[in-house]
Amino acid sequence: MPMEPNTYDPGNFKALTFHDRLRDFEDGSDSPRAYLERCLETVAAEEPVVQAFAFLDEDLARAAADESSARWKGSQPLSPIDGMPIGIKDLLETRDMPTQMNCKAYQGNFPKNDNSLVWALRQAGAVIFGKTVTAELGGSHPGPTTNPFDATRTPGGSSSGSAAAVAAGMMPAAIGSQVGGSIIRPAAYCGNVALKPSQGGMHRGERQTTSMSTHGPHAGSIEDMWQVAIEIASRAGGDPGHTGLMGPMTTPLPVRPERLVVLETEGWAKTDDASKAVFAKLMDNLERAGITLIRRAHHTWVESLEASIADATHVCGTITAWENRWGYRNLLDRHPGGVSQRLQQTLAAAEAMTPEDYRDLVLRRQHARVNHAAIAPLADAAVTFACPGPATPWPGDIPGEPLAPRPTGDAVYNYPSSMLGSPVVTVPLMGVGGLPVGLQIIGQREEDARMTAIARWLLENIPPATG
Amino acid sequence: MPMEPNTYDPGNFKALTFHDRLRDFEDGSDSPRAYLERCLETVAAEEPVVQAFAFLDEDLARAAADESSARWKGSQPLSPIDGMPIGIKDLLETRDMPTQMNCKAYQGNFPKNDNSLVWALRQAGAVIFGKTVTAELGGSHPGPTTNPFDATRTPGGSSSGSAAAVAAGMMPAAIGSQVGGSIIRPAAYCGNVALKPSQGGMHRGERQTTSMSTHGPHAGSIEDMWQVAIEIASRAGGDPGHTGLMGPMTTPLPVRPERLVVLETEGWAKTDDASKAVFAKLMDNLERAGITLIRRAHHTWVESLEASIADATHVCGTITAWENRWGYRNLLDRHPGGVSQRLQQTLAAAEAMTPEDYRDLVLRRQHARVNHAAIAPLADAAVTFACPGPATPWPGDIPGEPLAPRPTGDAVYNYPSSMLGSPVVTVPLMGVGGLPVGLQIIGQREEDARMTAIARWLLENIPPATG
Repeated sequence: MPMEPNTYDPGNFKALTFHDRLRDFEDGSDSPRAYLERCLETVAAEEPVVQAFAFLDEDLARAAADESSARWKGSQPLSPIDGMPIGIKDLLETRDMPTQMNCKAYQGNFPKNDNSLVWALRQAGAVIFGKTVTAELGGSHPGPTTNPFDATRTPGGSSSGSAAAVAAGMMPAAIGSQVGGSIIRPAAYCGNVALKPSQGGMHRGERQTTSMSTHGPHAGSIEDMWQVAIEIASRAGGDPGHTGLMGPMTTPLPVRPERLVVLETEGWAKTDDASKAVFAKLMDNLERAGITLIRRAHHTWVESLEASIADATHVCGTITAWENRWGYRNLLDRHPGGVSQRLQQTLAAAEAMTPEDYRDLVLRRQHARVNHAAIAPLADAAVTFACPGPATPWPGDIPGEPLAPRPTGDAVYNYPSSMLGSPVVTVPLMGVGGLPVGLQIIGQREEDARMTAIARWLLENIPPATG
Repeated sequence: MPMEPNTYDPGNFKALTFHDRLRDFEDGSDSPRAYLERCLETVAAEEPVVQAFAFLDEDLARAAADESSARWKGSQPLSPIDGMPIGIKDLLETRDMPTQMNCKAYQGNFPKNDNSLVWALRQAGAVIFGKTVTAELGGSHPGPTTNPFDATRTPGGSSSGSAAAVAAGMMPAAIGSQVGGSIIRPAAYCGNVALKPSQGGMHRGERQTTSMSTHGPHAGSIEDMWQVAIEIASRAGGDPGHTGLMGPMTTPLPVRPERLVVLETEGWAKTDDASKAVFAKLMDNLERAGITLIRRAHHTWVESLEASIADATHVCGTITAWENRWGYRNLLDRHPGGVSQRLQQTLAAAEAMTPEDYRDLVLRRQHARVNHAAIAPLADAAVTFACPGPATPWPGDIPGEPLAPRPTGDAVYNYPSSMLGSPVVTVPLMGVGGLPVGLQIIGQREEDARMTAIARWLLENIPPATG
């Protein structure tokens, strides 16, 4: 049954989990097939409103779950995620399902390849549970998915379906991808836990076009989040040239942070007062737990970092638009009218750029990374909002009117960590007006496991804040 | 007319050039169409033996040349390479020609996209002059191309057709690509000048899969080589996240090096005595010109660099095999039997690897890069053979026998600079047994223009060596 809108409470919400079922799989009192059937029941109940799936073949999922059930029965599971139903964002290729990217030009696209991450999940025994809705080509033009906590609002994007499916309890984990804010923002709007790995941390397979994109898991629990990430990385490794995500083969033990840098970013000016008040409560909770908070006024190096990410939206958006121009130009030439007006506008702006414009932005990104590396000894991590308040209403474009900006919400709090190439975990520690708002925990490059450990400690020890 | 085999003399050989025709284009005494017709005459004479082209549509080339001729006539050329016929290695996509990669699985492949480099060349007015033969998928399984200086020998690979077409005077420049040694080795075997840019220096378009590949020009002259490179880079820029190749918009002025490090690499042990004797003569010529040579015995940091690149063949070959495994596995699953036995062997070895094996090699590559950066203040550049002696005979595989190793020659001298991500220019300054052998000039990252300037000085001032 859909929940009543605007009644989300981070202290009470129970997300779907998988890691706590393994003992029952072992003793035969539960099975991956039975688990999948429960997921399918939730899909049947919620999908008509949530619309998280771009493609779902229940028989395909059942066949994979049956194979997994047989492995558990024979006491030979391939991994702790053997049998876990995992949705795949419909940007990533899957050999037995179409990959249509919510883009007219890709309708019917069925390349019969597995993205390296999908390959790794299959090797680990996971059940590839359909394709989840993405904003068009991973950009901002939205799909049909709604926010499970209020169907009049966006689930965020571009990993809209992955975030919503996890929030609705349709699956315990799903794969998203982020260039600007496409994992962390929808996860934060939907009360997920999620990991955006360090840049290069998880092999992107055929999706190597941009310098700031990552693939990562959305999940209902920190345990499932990490397990999915490490099972993938231990098989497929990182992007070409990167050593990739490393860490323990089970969820890192909780680590209590002593000091946290609190970042404002350019998001602060765009955040409503109610959300800021809840954030302040959460910061109080952190201080009450003995954690020292370091803000921009406390240390000039934090101020320098803030200054160098103050226009992260522009820097990241423009870098990515330039990097996508070749692919999009070829796509549009092959399929005139095959992409949205929103994407055509982005392409036109990119095609007005020169290599010099791009170089300047890459250099500014380097400066920001130097400033971020400098604050490493100041604190255990940095924290900030994972989204600028709760998910925004999305009534749809109005024919004849100019295109509404940011239909999947504003990635203003996510561009900085994308720009820095940093690992980020979002944790659902705030509720504003009965809707989820995430807290973002940002680490230094390759600190994915440590950020997960800190996130786990916060989830287990810090009372959420609401208002 | 084909030249007599084994009569190549680097002091007398006249390659086809383009940069020296611009004045005649301006005054109307020559035109790009007439230039192309001369190229087509050479193709008609040489192609039956050389077999440099994988695809050639003469009408398409003539139409592009006519458009260029009209621009020159109207005194509005798009660039100094407007009208230059340039072959494109058949790994890179071209919207109006098939891209078949010398691979059974890609027969008939016609994606109707332009690689970003091809797009840039068109913007600069160049005549896209067909697709040149590549070894299968850019690997080692050879195509039909023969060495223009001796048809019983390999032209090198994998940019076989680009190197041979330039050597045979069919075109003034052609595009190659290198992962291990696929630009520099064939260029050196064929008496070309060629640039392998710094890693990331030239945008690779759809070919972003590996961490050590670059696209770059083969040419008959240093002027045409640089002009092609800078016209591309000034339009398409570098790979995602890289500032890309920068430098003057015309060929850098000659720079006389004061000191050069002479590297042996693991190639030295694999080089025949006749070639070593010619190399020694060339080194004498450098010293006679007042250049100080610094060898491994002279400085411990050079010895450290030599030690860290002593198994570059293994490190590079294995890194690249791992990086290609996802794509090749998908390809083979879609097209069982669609790739050569050679490629299947490479894939099998890669699929026996773990992410840890890969990480160890990436770390060793990092060590080598540190050792290379350390020698920057010791000298202006490093030099070594560009190929281990002249092109090797290639009689073809013998049915029933084990596959012959290295049918396109040995990249042993090229892996080190690929591993280091360094810019390399090869110059045809040696002749051994009447066949070309290149000298490789290796710079620090982003020193592409300076290496070009040094190469130009050497070409203009150092007598070639023969024997």
